[in-house]
Amino acid sequence: MRQLTFALWLLLIPAFVVAQEASVMQQIKTEGIENSQVMDIAFHLTEKSGPRLMNSPGYYRAMDYSIDQLKAWGLDNVAKDEWGDFGKGWELKKFYIAMKSPWYKPVIAFPKAWTSGTNGLKTAAVILIDPEADSTALVNNYRGKLAGKILAMDKLIEYKLDDKADLVRYTKAELDSLGAIQLDKKEADTTGMAERRRKWIQSWRESRKKAEILGNLAKEEGAVAIISSSPRNHDGTVFVQQGGSHAMDAPENFLDIAMALEDYNMIVRLVRANEPVELELEVDSQFYTDQEKGYNVIGEIIGTDPKLKDEVVMIGGHLDSWQGSVGATDNASGSAVMMEAMRILKTLNIKPKRTVRIGLWGGEEQGIHGSRGYVSKTFANREDMKLKPAHEKFNVYFNFDNGTGRINGIYLQENEAARDIMNKWLSPFEDLGATTITIENTGGTDHLSFDGVGLPGFQFIQDEVEYNSRTHHSNMDSYDHLV
Amino acid sequence: MRQLTFALWLLLIPAFVVAQEASVMQQIKTEGIENSQVMDIAFHLTEKSGPRLMNSPGYYRAMDYSIDQLKAWGLDNVAKDEWGDFGKGWELKKFYIAMKSPWYKPVIAFPKAWTSGTNGLKTAAVILIDPEADSTALVNNYRGKLAGKILAMDKLIEYKLDDKADLVRYTKAELDSLGAIQLDKKEADTTGMAERRRKWIQSWRESRKKAEILGNLAKEEGAVAIISSSPRNHDGTVFVQQGGSHAMDAPENFLDIAMALEDYNMIVRLVRANEPVELELEVDSQFYTDQEKGYNVIGEIIGTDPKLKDEVVMIGGHLDSWQGSVGATDNASGSAVMMEAMRILKTLNIKPKRTVRIGLWGGEEQGIHGSRGYVSKTFANREDMKLKPAHEKFNVYFNFDNGTGRINGIYLQENEAARDIMNKWLSPFEDLGATTITIENTGGTDHLSFDGVGLPGFQFIQDEVEYNSRTHHSNMDSYDHLV
Repeated sequence: MRQLTFALWLLLIPAFVVAQEASVMQQIKTEGIENSQVMDIAFHLTEKSGPRLMNSPGYYRAMDYSIDQLKAWGLDNVAKDEWGDFGKGWELKKFYIAMKSPWYKPVIAFPKAWTSGTNGLKTAAVILIDPEADSTALVNNYRGKLAGKILAMDKLIEYKLDDKADLVRYTKAELDSLGAIQLDKKEADTTGMAERRRKWIQSWRESRKKAEILGNLAKEEGAVAIISSSPRNHDGTVFVQQGGSHAMDAPENFLDIAMALEDYNMIVRLVRANEPVELELEVDSQFYTDQEKGYNVIGEIIGTDPKLKDEVVMIGGHLDSWQGSVGATDNASGSAVMMEAMRILKTLNIKPKRTVRIGLWGGEEQGIHGSRGYVSKTFANREDMKLKPAHEKFNVYFNFDNGTGRINGIYLQENEAARDIMNKWLSPFEDLGATTITIENTGGTDHLSFDGVGLPGFQFIQDEVEYNSRTHHSNMDSYDHLV
Repeated sequence: MRQLTFALWLLLIPAFVVAQEASVMQQIKTEGIENSQVMDIAFHLTEKSGPRLMNSPGYYRAMDYSIDQLKAWGLDNVAKDEWGDFGKGWELKKFYIAMKSPWYKPVIAFPKAWTSGTNGLKTAAVILIDPEADSTALVNNYRGKLAGKILAMDKLIEYKLDDKADLVRYTKAELDSLGAIQLDKKEADTTGMAERRRKWIQSWRESRKKAEILGNLAKEEGAVAIISSSPRNHDGTVFVQQGGSHAMDAPENFLDIAMALEDYNMIVRLVRANEPVELELEVDSQFYTDQEKGYNVIGEIIGTDPKLKDEVVMIGGHLDSWQGSVGATDNASGSAVMMEAMRILKTLNIKPKRTVRIGLWGGEEQGIHGSRGYVSKTFANREDMKLKPAHEKFNVYFNFDNGTGRINGIYLQENEAARDIMNKWLSPFEDLGATTITIENTGGTDHLSFDGVGLPGFQFIQDEVEYNSRTHHSNMDSYDHLV
């Protein structure tokens, strides 16, 4: 809780557009420390709502809650904001899986989103699939053999002993080194990073294509499920995302279940040792097709200065999550911090001259859809780069989406001109450790939607805490993992 | 694999009773490295057999395998060895649990051993129990309220961020400090350790008594289950042991399910927030009452020297495990290493002058029953300390039961007289790091059965690896966590 409170002081910087007086800053700090509601907001977004997979009931519960809450605090123009087409929602209604023979063992696993169910309780033998088989070989070698079977790749996943703590924080040296990078001296790509990335994307596409072919074959043949694993899935933590397209016109994806490597490897080893392995499983998942559109939540505090109120300072984070848990660090933390920032401004009756607006985005996890849609219709269309009038009135966007760690500073996104402003802006928060300004880019989330049409959009430098080791897109992204 | 191989070289020290020649040592090392079967033995004891809870089918599968294997290698007098009464076996036949409302979430959990089932699929609301209520208040306050309910203590379990690596190895300084302890200079108990331990035992007994009263009340009233958690149950790892007595005449214990703290806390928080939380669950567990006796596995290589063959050098580890996984580090590792040691002696046709005997113990987890029973009937009865003839012919017992870590040396169990012998004995293994000899005691496992009747019984100093952090008595004590 301490760290979320901590983070939001920094986010209350929009207040500095109204008043730089020390007394206001002090009021904000006091409200944030003594009357913090951030963990209560986070509780409502997570455990009260459930997983917030886009267009699923959990997403809409969180959306309704945040709209009600922002209205209750007295924000202006609070509304669900349509940003365009998204596609189907999906929700797990029942999930049971266990190894039934050679002996009984409950298995730790989670179905991938937008995959179909088993249509009741099934018992099925496991068949191992040659991981080296290309698309043609898959079809040739396995046609006629998959009916009633569960498919697993004939490949053991390497378990690596945890020789590092899950908890990761920046060291001073790391932050200093981030801060010291200079734009004109940034090294050219001598290490072949771009080439490696290109190869990685190519190999990812190939493996996706093969997975699709296998899924289609399994479906055609009447198989029961595919199970899969990865080196990160250990100790009971399972990372799980989508099992195919969520587009409204896409067919239901074949059932694909992410599994803890300990259980997955056990199954592979037993089948290799000629044990007849049978799993017992029941998956009931529901697709929601009544609503193709996607919605964000938008609300604002309209500026009080008639000349300045058309200017907008914006803060935000994404409201949606993956399905394995309740998206606590990805990204209820960001949404809760941003909502709490707005609450404090209203509670203290701070009247900004410019308009302060909050955006809680949908569909971030499937490609920052919500913020892109909002930016496109509000500021500039990405396709033709035609600017709308609001574009020139837009001041800045601050995004919060990197877990639950302390804010150490900010990424400039290679915008050297912003350094001086950020320096002044962060100065009241030096005592909280928010001192590092780096010219570097950081990617992967909603500030890119602003950055992409020439609007200043920034993300903070946050300690990872357990983001990469445990919580990010896993079944452990739960309320207790919030700091 | 490397480390298990490593460990067993050391255990082949019984060979030194036959031949100290360097050539024999070299042969043993070569066989252990180049033809190691230790991981294959471990696979049979773990994933092929299943959990080896005492008197359950998994235990008997592992027992049959090890008897067959020891016989196949040509050991003498291989047999299941009755050591007295144990009680019931128990096995999980089906386990499903999920939160059904306010929204659906599969929950990570595992039933405690020797608890009963649900008699089919049940849906039940959660009721929170005051953790401060004493036995009388429990009965007075909750009688009439528990029918059809699932009981949870109204107490959140603190989640602590993992700020240390799971992997733990001894540092040189720690080993040096262990080695430097002197018996006559061991400090008196000025820190109140004994007093703290006494208090801990008292508090443990009280909480067991309260749990028993609650379990009986729940059973009487027709509740569905109790759920419980602890600070160690995080990231999907769940530590789980017994839920009551396994004695043949004990009634079936009421269903008690150990749960991951993330899920447990979520349930408690939602009920506190007046959400009607319902769980859906099905537990089918089978009690085995056909066999009250407990059995170890014993086998030996009879010594070749007519004058010395009545003298016995013994090695061993326990074969049984808890139910949450396959007891890989506790203690398939120890059993596999000891079996592999015997295999190597036979494979190399080494003919010891004294008899070398292996004991694979049952019922260790419920109180080192198997080794105690064996020692009692073979060497000396603990009750009257009447020594049997074999007592004076007994040389030494080496036990292996501390996970999968490297052997750094040995505990002398305060037997200073053994220091010189151990020093000589360990000297060929200096290059493997087995150099520390400490006067300290180590407890908790089968060497105590020997020590308790005045026979030299020793345990090794092993690196913890993930023993305390992940595997020991948890659902993660799986094959992949073997090093």
